[in-house]
Amino acid sequence: MKNFYIALIHYPVVDRRGDEVVSSVTNLDLHDLARSSRTYGVKGYYVVHPSPDQQALNRRIIKHWEGSYGTQMNPTRKEAFSCLRLVSFWKDVIEEVTREEGESPLVVGTSAKPVPTKKLDLEGLKGILQSRSVILVFGTAYGLSPLWQERLDAFLPPIYGPSAYNHLSVRSAVAIYLDRIFGH
Amino acid sequence: MKNFYIALIHYPVVDRRGDEVVSSVTNLDLHDLARSSRTYGVKGYYVVHPSPDQQALNRRIIKHWEGSYGTQMNPTRKEAFSCLRLVSFWKDVIEEVTREEGESPLVVGTSAKPVPTKKLDLEGLKGILQSRSVILVFGTAYGLSPLWQERLDAFLPPIYGPSAYNHLSVRSAVAIYLDRIFGH
Repeated sequence: MKNFYIALIHYPVVDRRGDEVVSSVTNLDLHDLARSSRTYGVKGYYVVHPSPDQQALNRRIIKHWEGSYGTQMNPTRKEAFSCLRLVSFWKDVIEEVTREEGESPLVVGTSAKPVPTKKLDLEGLKGILQSRSVILVFGTAYGLSPLWQERLDAFLPPIYGPSAYNHLSVRSAVAIYLDRIFGH
Repeated sequence: MKNFYIALIHYPVVDRRGDEVVSSVTNLDLHDLARSSRTYGVKGYYVVHPSPDQQALNRRIIKHWEGSYGTQMNPTRKEAFSCLRLVSFWKDVIEEVTREEGESPLVVGTSAKPVPTKKLDLEGLKGILQSRSVILVFGTAYGLSPLWQERLDAFLPPIYGPSAYNHLSVRSAVAIYLDRIFGH
């Protein structure tokens, strides 16, 4: 099996009106997605944010948990953060993974609403992963802007439970997708 | 199928040394677990905390999202919080669910480490749920104190991915358990 990556996108995403925005970093997105990534064998978890200030905040949070106090208080958190990679732009993700894997990865989006084109189901994804590395892309705020429909190779179906409500947090959605792909 | 409930416990739980503690409320535990509960058809999500101050904080957070500003900004969050129930003690959970269901529910614990006794697998749980209501119990901090092994009827197996690391956040763990029980 090839390597699997995830990317958490803060721009361009949409707000509740569907307008394009840059979202702020959420501290627990760093923690929860790193812990889920480490649990399910994700090689790299990219946090993509264009703002130097927000990047500095991310670095400060991580530095706390990788420092002597944080390591002593919670050694497993440092281990989780070892897969975390902070970058400014989506092109940085693609360039780094392409260089590391020696091939262009398949980039797959997620969405709470069905995306009409480029559909790929979980079995299809698992099949491709046997021979090609994959980056699974998640949007913050109200999700990836429609611009991503051109950038990405495919989209996984939304996560549904038995109810019509499907407003999961990105922390929950990442955990569930990873469990559905790698947990059984 | 009978009704399903979850409970998030803040006391007695253990800290990293295994000592019994009361943990603080985490804002995003309220949000994420309510959203996951609503998605997967959980009837009631109990946040159990003995401190009146922490209960007041919880009520203040929820009031914001159920008020006119919060409802306008994010109507689906109010919908998620409709399943949230704030109580002080575990006995309050049991009494309320027993009254509501007209029967004593099966109470099932979760743990990141295997519990040697009272093992119940997911298929067993789904089978029981056909004829008896169930409360699934989650610990904050480093998990439920060993005291719960007497209180609970059974324990589900821990969640494992392909790696040996299994330090998921409680937000991720709840999402994954609910998806494994109701998502397929």
